[in-house]
Amino acid sequence: MPAAVADIVADPAALAELVDDAVVWASQHGLLVGAGLSEPACAAVHAPLALLPVPYPRETFLRAQRAALAFNSMINAVAQDETYLQNVLAAAAQEDEFTARLLRVYEETAKERHARAGTDAVLAVLRSDYMLHTPTNSLLQVELNTIASSFGCLSTLVARMHRYLMGRAGVSPAQVAALPEHNAMDSIVDAMGAAAADYGVQGGVMVMVVQPGERNSYDQQWLQTRLWERHGVRTLRRSLAQLAADGRLSEGGRLEVSGHPVAVVYFRAGYTPDDYPSEAEWAARVLVEQCDAYKCPTVAFQLAGAKKIQQDLARPGVVERYAASAEDAALLRGFFAGQWALEDLSEPDTAAVVADAVANPERYVLKPQREGGGNNFYGAELRQRLQQGGGGLAAYILMQRIQPPVQPAIMVRGGKAVQADTLSELGVYSTYVRRGDRVLLSAEAGHLVRTKSADSNEGGVAAGFAVLDSPMLV
Amino acid sequence: MPAAVADIVADPAALAELVDDAVVWASQHGLLVGAGLSEPACAAVHAPLALLPVPYPRETFLRAQRAALAFNSMINAVAQDETYLQNVLAAAAQEDEFTARLLRVYEETAKERHARAGTDAVLAVLRSDYMLHTPTNSLLQVELNTIASSFGCLSTLVARMHRYLMGRAGVSPAQVAALPEHNAMDSIVDAMGAAAADYGVQGGVMVMVVQPGERNSYDQQWLQTRLWERHGVRTLRRSLAQLAADGRLSEGGRLEVSGHPVAVVYFRAGYTPDDYPSEAEWAARVLVEQCDAYKCPTVAFQLAGAKKIQQDLARPGVVERYAASAEDAALLRGFFAGQWALEDLSEPDTAAVVADAVANPERYVLKPQREGGGNNFYGAELRQRLQQGGGGLAAYILMQRIQPPVQPAIMVRGGKAVQADTLSELGVYSTYVRRGDRVLLSAEAGHLVRTKSADSNEGGVAAGFAVLDSPMLV
Repeated sequence: MPAAVADIVADPAALAELVDDAVVWASQHGLLVGAGLSEPACAAVHAPLALLPVPYPRETFLRAQRAALAFNSMINAVAQDETYLQNVLAAAAQEDEFTARLLRVYEETAKERHARAGTDAVLAVLRSDYMLHTPTNSLLQVELNTIASSFGCLSTLVARMHRYLMGRAGVSPAQVAALPEHNAMDSIVDAMGAAAADYGVQGGVMVMVVQPGERNSYDQQWLQTRLWERHGVRTLRRSLAQLAADGRLSEGGRLEVSGHPVAVVYFRAGYTPDDYPSEAEWAARVLVEQCDAYKCPTVAFQLAGAKKIQQDLARPGVVERYAASAEDAALLRGFFAGQWALEDLSEPDTAAVVADAVANPERYVLKPQREGGGNNFYGAELRQRLQQGGGGLAAYILMQRIQPPVQPAIMVRGGKAVQADTLSELGVYSTYVRRGDRVLLSAEAGHLVRTKSADSNEGGVAAGFAVLDSPMLV
Repeated sequence: MPAAVADIVADPAALAELVDDAVVWASQHGLLVGAGLSEPACAAVHAPLALLPVPYPRETFLRAQRAALAFNSMINAVAQDETYLQNVLAAAAQEDEFTARLLRVYEETAKERHARAGTDAVLAVLRSDYMLHTPTNSLLQVELNTIASSFGCLSTLVARMHRYLMGRAGVSPAQVAALPEHNAMDSIVDAMGAAAADYGVQGGVMVMVVQPGERNSYDQQWLQTRLWERHGVRTLRRSLAQLAADGRLSEGGRLEVSGHPVAVVYFRAGYTPDDYPSEAEWAARVLVEQCDAYKCPTVAFQLAGAKKIQQDLARPGVVERYAASAEDAALLRGFFAGQWALEDLSEPDTAAVVADAVANPERYVLKPQREGGGNNFYGAELRQRLQQGGGGLAAYILMQRIQPPVQPAIMVRGGKAVQADTLSELGVYSTYVRRGDRVLLSAEAGHLVRTKSADSNEGGVAAGFAVLDSPMLV
């Protein structure tokens, strides 16, 4: 921590003033989340945030940035291998209805997909999440998000806020330079703009598929505003239910929503079974999959992000098959934590790791393979679930528990600051635009740090556990 | 209204989308007011706003802009004439305790003021408010604010929002050019910065004197943020009570607050008796008046803005005495509405106008001479108060009621739009920095339009009656 900042943290009055500066800056610059009021529903409050950037090892950070394009290319190759997706996910689908249903959408839309082979329109906004693992001093991947990678806009604003606060605190420009600049907001928007431009239809809109009553709409709406300002493309926000009612597929495969031709469909919903309360929502998903718009993501990309796939890629020889080069494969493999399938508990390797996890549950996480977070087993619950056994375990993967460094931080929520011991998770965004075999864009697209209390297992910012943060490279 | 906008207004779905665009833009860009929650107190909601700019006659608008420097120079001359201020306000002071007390502060601090003659430090942020008067097709001044002229920042943002919304609505760049650009936010901040620079003390701060529990703090905090960004000057927010406890006058007349030397004291409180609940607040006001910092405003400038002074300036020959030139005087006099003192009700001219007001109360307003708004008499209440008579009327002035054009508008509050017949009031900001006889800065500094329902007599945005608006010149 720069000396100027340490002085402030040590002085309660100066600290209170810096907290106030943070809250004011955040409110002025749209670093907001919904206040959760029913009336007025548009009331907002600053996003939960870390007052100061978190120290992060520079070389490790740069390595994660460098891996962005390798992940893009690898996940695209996986998503294009129908047989691989179906084979790997078959067992999980037997246990997890959501995976099964997504696979069914994938299979039901095979006709349109195959007809469009060579001209299919893919937009991906990935976020690869990592934590530092202190025992081996390495950076390990927590997950690779292929749908609804959130917080690109708010993380851009948090980085700007930290620069502002460092200046307010009297930190030297040389030290401020240790805060890596990025613009995930515009990087993501530029990928959307490139997709819309390639779609090439006058007045083509982006449909943002959202959850009804979304509280994190500010992060999403920055994309809308910037997509308009930078690329002149309008956004229609629709829930899956609205899309089912309001979307129409024309003869050529064009999707029209409220009479507007759709160039891009961008999902910020659809990654959890809760988003599909009826058949109408599944019908909307099929409709999108059938249309000729850019999809972010396609069902194939969403399936390629399954934990089960992640676990399978970590098996010897698998990531090597999908990476663009041997160098890429080595780079990617370096981020893989130990991960084990639980389909055949009698298999000797599986039995051994399960026995170890029951004996040392603190070294493992038990994760369901679907997206959304918040459903993991840790500690005593993990032991209990493993001991309970049963076929249901096939829908889970067992993963090495990452042991990140614990660091002090000042977390600000609702205008109030709390000091705590914390863990931080780094996310690196990447964008990818492909039309048939032609890759229009593949780019590293900024980053995110989320910091949470060291005594909380779950880490969602929206769920109230974590705060938005940014790195200070050391 | 441009055709593209008319089409949107006529289509409920398109209109709802534009309202949404406005609410989102406002939330993203700090065009906010407090949500009024106790917890979290920092929750905010978009400021009440007009969805579209209001048509405003171009020549009239430009004339009001041109008058800004003439008002600066005139009000400065009035504020420097001690005898005039005391003579004109003497009768009003007998009826209005607040005026009396301000005059007393003025008199009690005469020693310091006279000792500092030739090097006194004056910062003024004026806002001259006008309404169009349809019967004579003229622009008449409603009042000249010399203390706590608010909404400079939010009005800057509303003008930007209207430009954005016009673009969204598909209005041509030529038509968008009819929205006059301005930057009241930075113009005001630059005057503050010039004052702080002239004060010339390393680490000198601006103290913003605020009301406890201020809901319009977002407008104020933009000044703080921009003053830091543009001029590296920090702001301390203090209530008068805090200032009484926390302020200290050093030997040379320097004010120190929480140990910081004060370069500028900027009042966003202190204009209403409610701001002085005890002697402590008056002691703080005296302290500021005694110190050598730039005061925005001095007590003299505050007194010069009294309605009673405004009424007296309108008398034949008076404004001519204080204006910088005959041209200035003619320009200023053109804005003066009919105004009458009520000190001697037996005086024939006064008796005649009171009789007319009792007969035609809709043509008049009865205004108390102190600041703050919301205490005027109209219609039947005005008639009743005049008929009641009594010496108390000396604290009021009778003013010609301005009859502005009624225009349709869409007012957005708490995310919801309401169409209404409305009246609009134009405010023109001006800034003024003087050290002794040396005028460091005198500038027109942007504008404000407030629009209110035609059936509401009072017009405060903060009080919930009016919305922030901007002009489209026609």
